[in-house]
Amino acid sequence: MKKYNFNAGPCVLPRPAVEASIDAIRNFDKTGIGVLEISHRSPGWVKVMNDCVDLWRELLHIPDNYKILFLAGGASTQFFTIPANILNKKAAYLQTGVWANKAMKEARFYGEVEVVASSEDKTYSYIPKEYTIPTNADYFHITTNNTIYGTELKEDIDSPIPLVADMSSDIMSRPIDVSKYGIIYGGAQKNVGTAGIAFVIVREDLLGKLDRPIQSMVDYRSHIKGESMFNTPPVFSVYVMYQTLLWVKSMGGVEAMHKINVDKANLLYNEIDRSKMFVGTAAKEDRSIMNVCFVMSDEHKDKETAFMDFAKDQGMVGIKGHRSVGGFRASIYNSCPVEAVEALVKCMQDFEKANQ
Amino acid sequence: MKKYNFNAGPCVLPRPAVEASIDAIRNFDKTGIGVLEISHRSPGWVKVMNDCVDLWRELLHIPDNYKILFLAGGASTQFFTIPANILNKKAAYLQTGVWANKAMKEARFYGEVEVVASSEDKTYSYIPKEYTIPTNADYFHITTNNTIYGTELKEDIDSPIPLVADMSSDIMSRPIDVSKYGIIYGGAQKNVGTAGIAFVIVREDLLGKLDRPIQSMVDYRSHIKGESMFNTPPVFSVYVMYQTLLWVKSMGGVEAMHKINVDKANLLYNEIDRSKMFVGTAAKEDRSIMNVCFVMSDEHKDKETAFMDFAKDQGMVGIKGHRSVGGFRASIYNSCPVEAVEALVKCMQDFEKANQ
Repeated sequence: MKKYNFNAGPCVLPRPAVEASIDAIRNFDKTGIGVLEISHRSPGWVKVMNDCVDLWRELLHIPDNYKILFLAGGASTQFFTIPANILNKKAAYLQTGVWANKAMKEARFYGEVEVVASSEDKTYSYIPKEYTIPTNADYFHITTNNTIYGTELKEDIDSPIPLVADMSSDIMSRPIDVSKYGIIYGGAQKNVGTAGIAFVIVREDLLGKLDRPIQSMVDYRSHIKGESMFNTPPVFSVYVMYQTLLWVKSMGGVEAMHKINVDKANLLYNEIDRSKMFVGTAAKEDRSIMNVCFVMSDEHKDKETAFMDFAKDQGMVGIKGHRSVGGFRASIYNSCPVEAVEALVKCMQDFEKANQ
Repeated sequence: MKKYNFNAGPCVLPRPAVEASIDAIRNFDKTGIGVLEISHRSPGWVKVMNDCVDLWRELLHIPDNYKILFLAGGASTQFFTIPANILNKKAAYLQTGVWANKAMKEARFYGEVEVVASSEDKTYSYIPKEYTIPTNADYFHITTNNTIYGTELKEDIDSPIPLVADMSSDIMSRPIDVSKYGIIYGGAQKNVGTAGIAFVIVREDLLGKLDRPIQSMVDYRSHIKGESMFNTPPVFSVYVMYQTLLWVKSMGGVEAMHKINVDKANLLYNEIDRSKMFVGTAAKEDRSIMNVCFVMSDEHKDKETAFMDFAKDQGMVGIKGHRSVGGFRASIYNSCPVEAVEALVKCMQDFEKANQ
């Protein structure tokens, strides 16, 4: 049976990226040696690293005064690495969910944390909008997409202090104005590859301003100097990222991806809004185009397990909602084909018809 | 042309591990979803994590009071993570090369570092033997195998304080008495897989003794509690490790690997000692069974480039020595087949005959 992968991350990847990665495991760059077994100092590999940086720069129009780093681990490692590098006295955070909370927790090791605004009062089902960013903080941290709650901050906001954005789950899903940010970072395992690697786009002038010493592996300057090969990089995870970005480019870049993503999201949200059986959980104006969260409506609450079983039988994978929200979540990242969303919509409609 | 992979790491992997990893990319655990695209919370994946821990425990006879962690990154990240977790006032280090120096540098962020002994005087070509481990230090750190210089500490030494060992390049190459160590750690990309993941075997009672707060991702207790899934693990790197360990087990475990490794190393060292053209660089009693370093003898120094070209033409890959030692290095880790070593020996003999 055909499976439709709605996993929240790690998640579905572009088929060409998967096939190219398998080919490289068998024979990398016509060397006769596989990509899992090559020296990361070999010319062919150095070229992949450089080409991958170039792709990031091209796809997101990243200005020259920003460096692009690929670092082992995911966003969780960056939660402490960012304040280690740029938090002097105080940082401001927008509290939009569990991941923002985790980021804040690590920042407190390095200084004061001011929660500028929070949507905790309504289970993070919306993005706070009325707030003032403190000008006396070292940076303002946002989580642009909140996978658990299906909310998304869809605009590049203006900040009087360096804006730091965790874009783990919506990077490359839309065009962004990088110049409005100080640091953009995230784990790769949603829109730009598989697990094991994080991307960090950092405006270089923000670094080197602290008196505090920084451990070599934590210091972004080590990795800038080493061009993300200060130590052995997670070679294969970089390769999958590289192939994923080549696919994004082949699709027409982030501008084209955005259009496709909006269409996919509308398809699913329209069905949720049409159906009397399902209800979206996120505030409409803040609905994520990456993670669509919904529950059974009050009168159909008793059918939750039945729908889950029905959907599973139709090949739907990974649509169980996070325990803090309940219900269902369809993660429809860049690589999720429109066919998968169409299949899910049909599945919802079929279930409704069978259970009226 | 057949290639013989002598890369120092990332390096050659067991063919069955590579093929099994490719199969899993196509379809993991009969789910219809590839291992790069599955949820790390799915039951099939949790089983792989647990089975991988069990394999470590079985192959190295790891006692129950030790925890086994798989963490993103390599040994470089552990260089600061270890002192962050267990260095209170002073740590003792055995200075056996560049990697030991790097480890020391990061320890100094957390306390005093005492260099107990050093082989720096002779380009780290031997392992210091006459020294006293200070009993007032929190731990004694050794690097059991020094890839660059081809030296190896081949016995489990007795230490009056917790012994911390970087075994990046000789883990699983011989039986070890884990109970003699406090922490054993390393990057996977030599004997236990591909790049992007580190293993940490830690005696649990050593943790939690510091007053200093530790960032969540740096704190081993986070990862113990999360069973190496405190955050999204580098899924594929774990999978390759798992398959590599299955291969070690199929070969007869570390006891059998050790015999094979000694035979392979002897084959090459015997040729080096027999030939008038080549000279080993490491002290004989400290010769590594993992990395064999050699140079041209004085009277043949002018033939270094010629031999490199000749070897390359015969399919030898990755035999250039590190710049600090010069000459040649053949890394003959667990997965390096004896045929590769035989081919290299023949290549050396053929070159000698052609250049007498």
